[in-house]
Amino acid sequence: MPSPTRLQADVLTGFIEEIFKRLGVPRNDARTAADVIVRADLRGVETHGVNNLQYYVDPLRSGRLNPTPDITVVRESPITAVVDGDGGMGLVVGVKAMEMCIAKAQKHGMGAVAVRRSKHYGIASYYALMCLPHDMIGLSMTNNSTPTVVPTFGRQPMTSTNPISVAVPTNNEAPFVMDFATSVVANSKVSLLLNQGETRIPLGWALDTHGQPTQDAQTALDALTFLPLGGTRELGSHKGYGLSVLVDILAGVLSGGIYGNLRQRNPPNDEKLRCSSSHFFSALHVEYFRPIDEFKAAMDDMLRALKNSEKADGHQRIFTHGEMEFEAEQDRRQNGIPIHPVFVDKLRALAVEFSIPLEF
Amino acid sequence: MPSPTRLQADVLTGFIEEIFKRLGVPRNDARTAADVIVRADLRGVETHGVNNLQYYVDPLRSGRLNPTPDITVVRESPITAVVDGDGGMGLVVGVKAMEMCIAKAQKHGMGAVAVRRSKHYGIASYYALMCLPHDMIGLSMTNNSTPTVVPTFGRQPMTSTNPISVAVPTNNEAPFVMDFATSVVANSKVSLLLNQGETRIPLGWALDTHGQPTQDAQTALDALTFLPLGGTRELGSHKGYGLSVLVDILAGVLSGGIYGNLRQRNPPNDEKLRCSSSHFFSALHVEYFRPIDEFKAAMDDMLRALKNSEKADGHQRIFTHGEMEFEAEQDRRQNGIPIHPVFVDKLRALAVEFSIPLEF
Repeated sequence: MPSPTRLQADVLTGFIEEIFKRLGVPRNDARTAADVIVRADLRGVETHGVNNLQYYVDPLRSGRLNPTPDITVVRESPITAVVDGDGGMGLVVGVKAMEMCIAKAQKHGMGAVAVRRSKHYGIASYYALMCLPHDMIGLSMTNNSTPTVVPTFGRQPMTSTNPISVAVPTNNEAPFVMDFATSVVANSKVSLLLNQGETRIPLGWALDTHGQPTQDAQTALDALTFLPLGGTRELGSHKGYGLSVLVDILAGVLSGGIYGNLRQRNPPNDEKLRCSSSHFFSALHVEYFRPIDEFKAAMDDMLRALKNSEKADGHQRIFTHGEMEFEAEQDRRQNGIPIHPVFVDKLRALAVEFSIPLEF
Repeated sequence: MPSPTRLQADVLTGFIEEIFKRLGVPRNDARTAADVIVRADLRGVETHGVNNLQYYVDPLRSGRLNPTPDITVVRESPITAVVDGDGGMGLVVGVKAMEMCIAKAQKHGMGAVAVRRSKHYGIASYYALMCLPHDMIGLSMTNNSTPTVVPTFGRQPMTSTNPISVAVPTNNEAPFVMDFATSVVANSKVSLLLNQGETRIPLGWALDTHGQPTQDAQTALDALTFLPLGGTRELGSHKGYGLSVLVDILAGVLSGGIYGNLRQRNPPNDEKLRCSSSHFFSALHVEYFRPIDEFKAAMDDMLRALKNSEKADGHQRIFTHGEMEFEAEQDRRQNGIPIHPVFVDKLRALAVEFSIPLEF
């Protein structure tokens, strides 16, 4: 197999920034949005990187995504806020909301911001990671208006994949960064597998349109009926279902935004609310609880112990959360981001369309 | 089958309170601890109710549990605190810590308190539920010093079952109250099954001492090697593993308390730290984000939609989190708490030992 084409992160970021600018996004916002997308590729989270570019480019072209949102603070206290995204890119709204959180936590130890009327915000961990240089623990979660996950004992999708990310600072070990859908898998993972030529998926991921388990990737994508983390009641699906509803509560209900299958049942008149995402962010300043050096030393100790613990048969390594992504980022910042041939062609087409030079 | 013996909640609470007082616990603390235990029975969470009484009575008798702890605030800001439990009952320390959280949230919109050197705190949701009358969202989590859950790709227990509970106020619907171990199941569930005569458990709950899957309940209890929520990597066990570590971070690392398998690796000299639990509590005042009536109406709407959504084959009902427990509590407050014959005998023995009258 030929080695994949690679692009340096700054080249890719500059290219995406330029496209967003041509589509009416102000320079700084375009830069921010490009940075969020490329960070996913740097961390090896291909489901949320440049592969997703069309999900921002197409709606910007058609006007369904607002390039110049009037992002407003609806309600605010020294440590809390509700932000209205005005139908703008979640990549931009999310960064502004987490910056508010961090500023609040800097002054008061904690901050929490709920966001409504935003759009797809990319990789959940980007926002949690923003907290690390400030020696804070970051929390980030989002929903969207397309339900794809069933409740326990149900067969109708009632929540979206509702991911949760938490980032925690460390000293020598890779920071603890968890970032996952509260379903067994997210639909984006099945899309990626299909793009890579896989047609089968494991039993326990998804149902077909008749509510029966399916192992066919295309059937699963057509039905968009995924199982909550745990899979079955016996193996704890009520836990995944609960986490999914929790994301809807903190992001959607608390902000006055979209939640559950509201759009399908009782579509709001407001178009920017109807097809939107709600987010929730929080930052927690470690020093308000414990001296940061002590905290980081204990984190290192705990993560090392996990890595050094006894391995299951057939396994040589136990990973801590964010460790693989940390290693990918170190490699890719140096050696460039591998781009799948399909996306090389797509990027070339965009380069031609927008007359932006792009050298592979 | 004969109908089980029932006891009124106030009778059971008074009886437990009296035992704790005889064991040196001050009156108010004894009352608080008894209330937490009986609340578990009221809510139908038999794994954490009077069945567990021996786990408090025996250590109080032997001196391993401090009946008169000097509960201190180690570090504090208007919205955060670290509390030291001085080896006291988690049932008492936890309530005091959550009361602090609520007071902070009342004034500032949010509160967060991390607790070290506490002990078993019973049902996690008790503390989250304390937030509901204040129109707050409550968060409660705990670890302990006995690891029972393996990381993904591991076979050595490295975290305890590390439960998380969140309670959210509603209007007409039962409050949303999730409360679960971050493992597929908690060991207490297997103990309960064994007590009830069940010898088999489902595949995917636990490993034996050789790291192999087991379906024998006694083998599972002997090995104390449970799987994280998700079970296998393919079905998302890294998510349960991540949540488990997150509880250790917020409760244990942030407070300067116990975490992971620290006691087994590098036992702290301090006995009250060595065999302890760490907790984390947070309260979030809804009004700081959204008018409470609007919030509760949206909660009701979301929960009703979940309950009314299409059912899977063979199921007539979709539950929301806390709904079953809410119904159990309504029934049991009126008709008394059913006591398993084994525990009727144990309670009678305690009544004789402490010369406390107890009428069934």
